[in-house]
Amino acid sequence: MKSMGKTDSLHGHVTNLTTAIENFHVKRLAMSHPPRNCPPDAVAWPRTVEQVSLLAATCYSRGVPVIPFGTGTGLEGGVTAVQGGVCVNLTKMDQISELNPEDFTVAVEAGVTRKALNKYLRESGLWFPVDPGADASLCGMVATAASGTNAVRYGTMRQNVLNLQVILPDGRVLHTAGQSRRPRKSAAGYNLTGLFVGSEGTLGFITQATLRLHGIPEATVAAICAFPNIQAAVDSTVQVLQAGLPIARIEFLDEVMMGACNRYSGLSYAELPTLFLEFHGTQQSVEEQVGATEAIVQSNGGSDFAWAWEPEAHAQLWAARHNAWYAALALRPGKKGYSTDVCVPLSRLPEVLLETKKDLLNSNLTGPLVGHVGDGNFHCLLILDPEDAEEKERVADFAKRLGRRALAVGGTCTGEHGIGLGKRQLLREEVGEVALSTMRQIKMALDPKNLMNPGKVL
Amino acid sequence: MKSMGKTDSLHGHVTNLTTAIENFHVKRLAMSHPPRNCPPDAVAWPRTVEQVSLLAATCYSRGVPVIPFGTGTGLEGGVTAVQGGVCVNLTKMDQISELNPEDFTVAVEAGVTRKALNKYLRESGLWFPVDPGADASLCGMVATAASGTNAVRYGTMRQNVLNLQVILPDGRVLHTAGQSRRPRKSAAGYNLTGLFVGSEGTLGFITQATLRLHGIPEATVAAICAFPNIQAAVDSTVQVLQAGLPIARIEFLDEVMMGACNRYSGLSYAELPTLFLEFHGTQQSVEEQVGATEAIVQSNGGSDFAWAWEPEAHAQLWAARHNAWYAALALRPGKKGYSTDVCVPLSRLPEVLLETKKDLLNSNLTGPLVGHVGDGNFHCLLILDPEDAEEKERVADFAKRLGRRALAVGGTCTGEHGIGLGKRQLLREEVGEVALSTMRQIKMALDPKNLMNPGKVL
Repeated sequence: MKSMGKTDSLHGHVTNLTTAIENFHVKRLAMSHPPRNCPPDAVAWPRTVEQVSLLAATCYSRGVPVIPFGTGTGLEGGVTAVQGGVCVNLTKMDQISELNPEDFTVAVEAGVTRKALNKYLRESGLWFPVDPGADASLCGMVATAASGTNAVRYGTMRQNVLNLQVILPDGRVLHTAGQSRRPRKSAAGYNLTGLFVGSEGTLGFITQATLRLHGIPEATVAAICAFPNIQAAVDSTVQVLQAGLPIARIEFLDEVMMGACNRYSGLSYAELPTLFLEFHGTQQSVEEQVGATEAIVQSNGGSDFAWAWEPEAHAQLWAARHNAWYAALALRPGKKGYSTDVCVPLSRLPEVLLETKKDLLNSNLTGPLVGHVGDGNFHCLLILDPEDAEEKERVADFAKRLGRRALAVGGTCTGEHGIGLGKRQLLREEVGEVALSTMRQIKMALDPKNLMNPGKVL
Repeated sequence: MKSMGKTDSLHGHVTNLTTAIENFHVKRLAMSHPPRNCPPDAVAWPRTVEQVSLLAATCYSRGVPVIPFGTGTGLEGGVTAVQGGVCVNLTKMDQISELNPEDFTVAVEAGVTRKALNKYLRESGLWFPVDPGADASLCGMVATAASGTNAVRYGTMRQNVLNLQVILPDGRVLHTAGQSRRPRKSAAGYNLTGLFVGSEGTLGFITQATLRLHGIPEATVAAICAFPNIQAAVDSTVQVLQAGLPIARIEFLDEVMMGACNRYSGLSYAELPTLFLEFHGTQQSVEEQVGATEAIVQSNGGSDFAWAWEPEAHAQLWAARHNAWYAALALRPGKKGYSTDVCVPLSRLPEVLLETKKDLLNSNLTGPLVGHVGDGNFHCLLILDPEDAEEKERVADFAKRLGRRALAVGGTCTGEHGIGLGKRQLLREEVGEVALSTMRQIKMALDPKNLMNPGKVL
């Protein structure tokens, strides 16, 4: 296999990789029933874009599936090797380049994580705000259209990517907005950048992203407040947004989640529907935002604010929210978690939350609710026993009903986790046959052999 | 032609339309050299989405080109019928529906203009901020990825469209995010909405758009100030953005443009590089933004601000900016205007502006410069004698050089006007062969007969 000669530096096991690619079809043919969720046939750790390109071209010419892999923090099975093939771990491509503070732009390779970038940026006075919770790789966040707690103010990945370097399935190098281009906006041709954001590794390898940065705010203050019911918390959110208050974070936790956080972190917050809020701006503007928000909250029967003006208090307050996943897991020690998300128009959020809580009760499932309420997006953190087949089925049925509940009110079955493996049927119901066939036409045009992360999304 | 029987209500001249479609190939065959920029063979004014669908299907089955038409305010020849066919004027589809104030969303049919929408919204406390100057149709603005003066704060059309109803070339009805869906964000499948924003009528007819609305700010104040040179104006802009000041508009006019505005509107502003600014927020936040901006401007040698706190003064001040096009035309009465735009990283803007001014001088051309400086985007309003072939060529050469100057510093040949007919060669230079062929594959997948607005973009 001569063409792989150049890939000696791909990783330490080039012989194994070469053998795996060469023997892929022989091995597959020998399996009468290839296992679903089987591991890949090989893993490669390229260090350069040329290596990714060569690897893609080699696999393409031999008909071997390839699966891009970042930090593996995705939640919808997007990196599962359902048809085997080569898993391409991109974490060794970790260079940050082309920081242009005056232009608020930076370029990062596939393996750079959001925390690594923000550490790198610290001295520049800039930051990258999209925060899905996990310390995910930024190009993985591009692939899944990640968002998170700051999206209500700073947007999701969709609003914060200016250009992408992509290795197409046949190994060609695509610059979605043209090589080295980084204007803040463009009307030049089809929006290829936007097409690759959220493509979940099914159209190409995202090997570099040019991102939009933001100024670190002069002042940051956090607060939490409790509400007598969900409606009051959501009404407050709508009124804050309607008043044009540039709130940076507005997170909802239901009373089950608050109870779990109290127990996990040794806190004593009221176990009621609660909002975690964060304000960014100048000292004066933050104070004004806080005053206006307090008035809105009180008019809706919310509690007094618990404040965090200092960094330490701020970190402590948000720790409860950041540890929500572990707090939920601690509700049933030794069990596993499954997080699913939906996003609905704000006005429909209270009814969807209430029906979901009723469904949890009826289904006898443990699932605290936590959400980016400013976007109408929430998660249900389901805790289950993976050994209990009946419970697993109950969880799967519940998650489908939750997705359909969101669809019934004009929402989406996923605001930020993506489709991956598990939500393909829901996607079909969400967008309809014409949109699905349009997506398939695009997939077919860009990946005619269906080798890029096959079996996902569509 | 039975299938057109149902289209009797399409417009008053259905017989002419039917004849035009039937005779299209006969007529074209008879032309040995079909004229470039020729008019369409027929114009249709559908009133319903079903009529657009039927018309598309009929033209598709007969191989007749179709050209979507909104208000015709585009600047790059996007509606020219280069291959003849049927021009589909969508202005009679002018219904506004599904206003959901709590969710900040509204749906508009193809012919609704931005001014009509904002008039409709007035009582709701909401508005749609994207403002390209002309009172364009909103779906036309989707098609061209329009932006304008407010984009620095509120984003372009790319950030403000949630869903689209599109008639595909063969007449099928596509809902890019699924029928009636309007979550603020989604990670469900490929971003078809984003693909159609900026597709310039080459992938389908945009017949309805679901838009994101914003709260009307409590207070608005405008100001202008002059600078000793371009660098000082741009430095001030960068510092305002870096300070995180949420400025709503920051517009640059060069000294030629200021002179033209003074003469046209009877004003007496200093004929120097000038910034027009606008601040939105609460009274207190606006005052704070103003104070901080004033300090930045003064540290860069800018003049004192001329203020407009009251609506009348505000309108008067902005009239100068809004009338820039007519003021430029008045520089050479009886001549025509051609406006071209580029967008570059902010840090490269001063050199690009200075080189462009030098080029104008060397080329003996009249072309005031005016721009959305917060986005690094500017226009050159070239005034020329359309009867003077040599001058037309000089303008065309100058515009190409301007585009290439933007490309040379990592910018784009168009920040908001689009590619249309005139910038296809520049698009190729901007994105490169791999991106261009990817765009062509998408076009081929969605419009295999190349009947949707043929000859544009690619």
